This record gives sequence, structure tokens and C-alpha cells, in this order.
Amino acid sequence: MTATEPFLGNMRRFIRDFRLIDRGEKIILAVSGGLDSMVLLDALDDLKRDSQLTLSVAHFNHQLRGIESDRDEALLRSVALARGLECYVERANTRAAAEAQKLSVEECARNLRYAFFEKLRSSLGYQKIATAHHADDNAETILFNLFRGAGVHGLSGIPVRRNDQSIIRPLLFATRKQIEGYAAERKVSYREDASNAEREYTRNFLRHDVIPLIRENINPNLIGTLSRTAELFDQLEEYLNEQARNIMPGLLVRGSEGSIILDLTAFRAQPVFLREHVLLHTAREFTAKEIDFATVKSMIRVADGETGTSCSIAKDAVFCRNRDQLIFMRNNRVTPFQHPIELRRRYQFDRFGFGSSASAQAPLSADPNVEYVDADTMAPECLLRNWKEGDWFIPLGMQEKKKLSDFFIDEKIPLFQKMAIPILVSNGEIVWICGMRLDERHKITPKTVRILKLEYTPRYAHVE
Amino acid sequence: MTATEPFLGNMRRFIRDFRLIDRGEKIILAVSGGLDSMVLLDALDDLKRDSQLTLSVAHFNHQLRGIESDRDEALLRSVALARGLECYVERANTRAAAEAQKLSVEECARNLRYAFFEKLRSSLGYQKIATAHHADDNAETILFNLFRGAGVHGLSGIPVRRNDQSIIRPLLFATRKQIEGYAAERKVSYREDASNAEREYTRNFLRHDVIPLIRENINPNLIGTLSRTAELFDQLEEYLNEQARNIMPGLLVRGSEGSIILDLTAFRAQPVFLREHVLLHTAREFTAKEIDFATVKSMIRVADGETGTSCSIAKDAVFCRNRDQLIFMRNNRVTPFQHPIELRRRYQFDRFGFGSSASAQAPLSADPNVEYVDADTMAPECLLRNWKEGDWFIPLGMQEKKKLSDFFIDEKIPLFQKMAIPILVSNGEIVWICGMRLDERHKITPKTVRILKLEYTPRYAHVE
Repeated sequence: MTATEPFLGNMRRFIRDFRLIDRGEKIILAVSGGLDSMVLLDALDDLKRDSQLTLSVAHFNHQLRGIESDRDEALLRSVALARGLECYVERANTRAAAEAQKLSVEECARNLRYAFFEKLRSSLGYQKIATAHHADDNAETILFNLFRGAGVHGLSGIPVRRNDQSIIRPLLFATRKQIEGYAAERKVSYREDASNAEREYTRNFLRHDVIPLIRENINPNLIGTLSRTAELFDQLEEYLNEQARNIMPGLLVRGSEGSIILDLTAFRAQPVFLREHVLLHTAREFTAKEIDFATVKSMIRVADGETGTSCSIAKDAVFCRNRDQLIFMRNNRVTPFQHPIELRRRYQFDRFGFGSSASAQAPLSADPNVEYVDADTMAPECLLRNWKEGDWFIPLGMQEKKKLSDFFIDEKIPLFQKMAIPILVSNGEIVWICGMRLDERHKITPKTVRILKLEYTPRYAHVE
Repeated sequence: MTATEPFLGNMRRFIRDFRLIDRGEKIILAVSGGLDSMVLLDALDDLKRDSQLTLSVAHFNHQLRGIESDRDEALLRSVALARGLECYVERANTRAAAEAQKLSVEECARNLRYAFFEKLRSSLGYQKIATAHHADDNAETILFNLFRGAGVHGLSGIPVRRNDQSIIRPLLFATRKQIEGYAAERKVSYREDASNAEREYTRNFLRHDVIPLIRENINPNLIGTLSRTAELFDQLEEYLNEQARNIMPGLLVRGSEGSIILDLTAFRAQPVFLREHVLLHTAREFTAKEIDFATVKSMIRVADGETGTSCSIAKDAVFCRNRDQLIFMRNNRVTPFQHPIELRRRYQFDRFGFGSSASAQAPLSADPNVEYVDADTMAPECLLRNWKEGDWFIPLGMQEKKKLSDFFIDEKIPLFQKMAIPILVSNGEIVWICGMRLDERHKITPKTVRILKLEYTPRYAHVE
């Protein structure tokens, strides 16, 4: 009985059960040159003809081990050549990049690698990237997550495929031992995975200290047991996502392309694990991007935090709590703006409208977007511009200058929002922080002769 | 800052949050004499006056450590006396009992202890039993379950209270260290918990080898982290139970006091974790008893097994698969029966009806509960009795004797069911295994002069 046949059979079954690969797909194999990825290459190459796949090999030379790194690359180039597969290689001085980005070498290497694979995938028109993670990796991940505090997601381990289908892990069914058996029998060439020596301390600790101890004393089949646990929790997570989708309509205050607003009270009435899935699901819908659970944890902190708390959920999207609402909004980096305006006219800008008009009286108004000022304190030409470092004003009712940056902090205005709030300036003096507070020097007094009505019309949810 | 005040405050908050104790309740404290349970005694005694509780102390002397066991008992009696609390003590030779019952000493001790506490509780009219399990115990349980293969239930750890409310664990919020701090400050008397030395190997292994290693290398606050994980999964489990209750109507074929029948196909269409909760929930409803997850696992095996597979779910209830149905049924231990009957009369017994009548013909019938025999092969007085060891017959169409025990095995009839099937006996010969198979020697032949029609009317689901 050979190790190869059942191994390949199990892989095919695994690929079929989880629908990892469709007939005729183009797949990039992420190959380091170590045991696992060389077996991935060998095994998928075996599948290639039946399923009419197009395979390419991609390798990132992290240049972390000098000549050894170059030998990894060389092995891989020769193997790809022998098999007639395209081979893409990228190189970078990872250590320098990590220092520059203030990341651990491990994390920086991963970022560089995945960015390269993804760039290849989309530019070459490939459907998927296949990585060589296996059941032992999965067990280590699950244990790590549990020890650090894991919910359902953490216990589902390494995803068999990413939500957007771009990354698949066809070896997740196999233990390290099975992979070794396969490699020995098929005489798969590989190089001692020196990157193991650089793996984070924690992973090595789990692999070499904790797992063997548990296998010996509690469960010899720990890896298999944790694989099944991962499958169960993966299924459970899928189920919870579905439940989250079902309860969404009851939480939604308003949804559009520009923002989604959830009712905080209704949100908090949900069990914790469903809240997480609501945020995950909504953030994915809103950004059309993969959202990881670290981001979900940040969002949970925002939802539990004070009004004005926010976090970034993607390059162009933020999540914030604003009083009794949870808001997903675009964070189109607010380009600094400076609009000269004349008084007694109406303007419509990209992100807001502004108008001023003569008024016979100055009634008390609860609307923060309407204010009345003494027209004679104003220059005929004013400016609407964004906040600048060093800005100050005298808040209505006060005697003292206040720095705008302090004012925004007191009002719990998140950074991204503060850049979007227009400030009305006359002769270099701040008149109004639109929608928020008037300046003391421009208020209506008994001496006021002419009254000017100011109207601000924001177009975004967070100031509505 | 003392350790006592926050400890008692945290305990009160914990008791309130989980609604462990209501004002005026009567509670039995399970006390071994060791640190944890003596702290439980001290802390709940502190709560007593405010909440108008009645407390008693219960101790099981397992006689496993000779004079030491007696000293534990003595300490505890004197502490109870000093505090004016009733003290109930039971003694047993646990080692002998374990040998007799073929259980581990640990398991047998636990059974004896809990049976004693429960007997006390119900006979004295107490509401609850309080045990001294704490956060470290909980962490050990969660890790053990994960390493052995845990679903949601296993990760919810030690229940804060049992489903039927009879057992509560008011110290589950506290770490061992906090309990030690409290004991030191309050000068709580206790005896080195020598039972620790007898704990199962696995628990000591987790406590002394695995947990310290993980605290040192991954998460110093592992115990707190696992406590939160337990809370999360406990909440999740509650949610899944609710979901299971919601889908039940769609699975139910028929439900009565005597049996509940679920549709196997509809059952299997549910995700695995919901199946578990459906069985848990249904078994609890049906038996009105606490069902543990080991039983649920057995039920899952039955549901995945062949037709006829069964398992016991309580003293008086079984669960079995019968073709495309899952059946919960009473297992009122079938008392052996032996009913003399006369031919051509109808009878109604407890569990079934039986009648025979002259017939002009013997039409082919698809109903297994109706058969036709040659009346002249029968004695005028027959017997309906249950199966007996050594029974044999000649199945219709065969030439050879067949042992009834083999016949039942071939037909996949579970043990409990086989005792309930009536067997028609004439002159010491088996004529019919009612509802299942006729005997060759009594069949209608071309020589038959008088035909006798036999009718069997079972009253239980499994033979309907």
C-alpha cells in the first residue's frame, strides 16, 4: 500500500467537497521551495490534466538567508522548468522593508508575499492562489486563537478558501506526517524549510512544546480532532453569517452606497456572536472587500465605545459610533478645500451646500445648521475652508480663545470627520464651525443693525 | 486594599448576573474541606443574612485516605457547628464501590457524592446545591474538551448552573489565585486538598504542565481569557438551543407522551451543530431530565447508524433509528408476560391487542400484522408470551430451525424492543412472531381445510 494513492484521492475528495477548484481554472501556486509547497506543486500538477487546469508557480525571494534563499529560488525555477510551468519570482530586502514599516519580519514578509501573489493573480487573469497550509498549521492556529481568546471564527482555523475565493488551501486535509510520506514516496525535491527557523516564536512553541505534549498525554490524534473542530466551527460560522443577514433589516436605519446606518440599541439587543457577524457581513457588503476578524474586533470596540469613536475598515471606509447610531461611511480622503464665497448667495459644493441671506429677525432655532450673525461684523467676501492646524476661535458664550483641535476633541469628532466640516472665515477670523458652534465676536447683540442668516446643508449621514 | 471586598463584590455581581440565587432560598453547600469549598462556605455565609438564605453543609467522606479523610470531616463539622449550620455527612468505602461497579475511583466518587447531595436536596426541600468549581477548573475543562474534540458545548466549559437549576457554581468567576488571596486574608481554615492527589492524571497534567507553559509563553491571563470564551460559548449554546426549538415543528412526524418521532431526512438536512441541539432539546422535553452531552453524542451515532440502532437516554427512555425515523420512546422495562388465549376470540392487553377468527380464504396481504394459518395445526388454547432464551422456529419459506435471537439480530431489532414483541405459541411450538414472521409448520397448504386469521394490533410507535 503506497502513501501516494490515498493522498491524491483524499485531496481530490477534499477539493470536490469544498468546491475549491472548478474545471479549467487558472491557478497560481504559492511555492517557497519547502516540503509543503513542493508537495502542493507535485499533487496539483497530478490533477492538472484531468481538470484541465492552468498552473503557474509564484515565489517570493525574501532574501533573508543569503545564498540559501537564492538556492530555494533556483530549485523552484528548475522544477517549474522541468514541468513546463510558468514561474514568477519577486525579490525584496524584507528585513529593510520591515524596519521601514515598523513591522515584524514575519508580518512584513507575509504582506509582501501576498501582495505579490494577488498582483500576479489579477494582472494575469488567474482565478485563484493556492497555498500549502496543512492540518498541522491549522491545529496550531486554532490552539493559538483559543489561548489568546477566540470566538467561533478563531476556532474555525485557517479558511479552506477565502470568502472572495481568491485563496484556496487544497492541502488542509493532510497532516504534516502524510505530506512527508507522500514526498518520500514520490521523491519530491524540496529544501529544508529554513523559513521555519524564522517563524514566530509562538508557532514554534506550539509545534514543538505544546502539541507533542498533548498528543502524548491526551489525544494521539489531536491534529485530526482539531481539523474536525475547525470544520464544525466553519460550518457554524457560515450559519451565523446567515443569521446575521436575516436580522439586518431590523437593525438598519438607512443604507445607501455612501453610508449604512445601524440602530445601536437594536444592535446591542443581539447576542455578542451575532453582533460580530452583523458587523462582518455589513462591512463586507459596504466595502466589497475581504474583512478580517481583527477588523471586526476593532468595530466591536467602536460599538462599545463612546460616541465619536471610529476605526478604519478599509482604505476608503470607516466605521464610527455617533450617539445611538453605528455608521459605515466612505472615507474618501477629504481633499483640503477653500471656497471663496460672497454673502447673500447660495452655493452647492461637492460635499455640502452653503447660503446666507438678510433676515428681519433671529428666532431661536434648534437646527444646528442654521445660525444668525451680525452682518456688520462680516467682510462681503468670506471663505469656506477645512480646519487647519493652529485654528482658534472664541466659542459663543465664552471669553477665551479656544483651539479648534481642542474643541473637536471635546466634541468627540473623529479625525476623518473634522477635515470634512466647513469653517466660515471672515477677514481671517473664524465665524462659524458650520453645524456646530458660532464665534462669540459675530453674534447678534442689542447693537446689531443688520442680521445675516447662515444656512449649511451637509450631504453626509454623520452630520445629518 | 484588601482581597476580600472585591472578591465578595465580584461574587455578588456574578450571582446576580447569572441569577444563581434568589432571595430566601435554601442551599446545600458541597464541601470537601479543601481550600475552594471552605472559601465557598465562608463567602456564601457572608451573603446569607442579606439574602435571607438557609445554608447547610454536606460532606461525603470517601474514606480514601484513612485518618486524613476523617480529619477533613472533623474540620468541617467543627466549622459548621461554629457557624450554626446544619451539617450532613455520608460515608462509603469508595474504593470497594468502584471495584464493584467497574468504574475509576474518581468517577465512582463523583457519582456517590452527587447522588448523596441530590438525595439531600430533594428530601430536605432545598432548592440548590452549590459547588466550589472555579475559573481554573473551568479552563482545565475547556482545554480538555478541545483536545478531545469539542463542539460548542465543550467550549462552554463547566455550566454556571445546571439546566434544571439544581446545581450552581458561585465561584466560577474567581481564579485559584483569587481564592487563595481571600482565604489568606479571611484566615479561612482548610485542609490541603488531598483529593487533588487523586484527581485524574489528565487534569493534573493540564494544571501542572500545559497551563503554566501557555501562561508563560502566550497569554499570562489564560484563565481569564478562557472564562470569557466559556461565557461566549455558553451564550451561543443557549442561542442554538433556541434555534433548535424553532426548527422542531418542521422535523416532527408525531409527538405524544409515549413517543416522539422525527423525520430522519429533514433532520439530516440540518447543520451538524443544530442536529445536536435538536436531540438535546427533544430528549430533555421527552424525559423531563437533565441530558448530558455524552448522551447527545450517542444519539448522534444512532442517527448516523443503521436502522435498529438505539441508545438509552434515561432510565425509562430510549432513542432509536427505525428506517427513516428517529424515535424517542418509553422503555418501561417490559415485564415478562404470558397470556393464555383461546382461538376465535379477541383480547386487549396492556401493550397490544390480539384476535383470531375463522376465515373462508387467505388473501395475500401487505399488512404484516395480519396472517393466515392452518387452523388444524393449532391447539385450541394457545399462549402469547415474550421471547425467551433458547426460542427457535422455522421461518416461513425455510427448512431449517432458526434461533429467535439470530432472527432478531438479522432484523435489527433492538434489545428493548425484542422483549415487547408477542410470540404466539401452540403446543410449545412457535406459530407467529407477531407482526414479523410466520412459522413454516403452520402455513396454509393445499391440504388446509380450515383457515384461521390472526390479527395483531400493537400500540407502540416502533411497530406501527
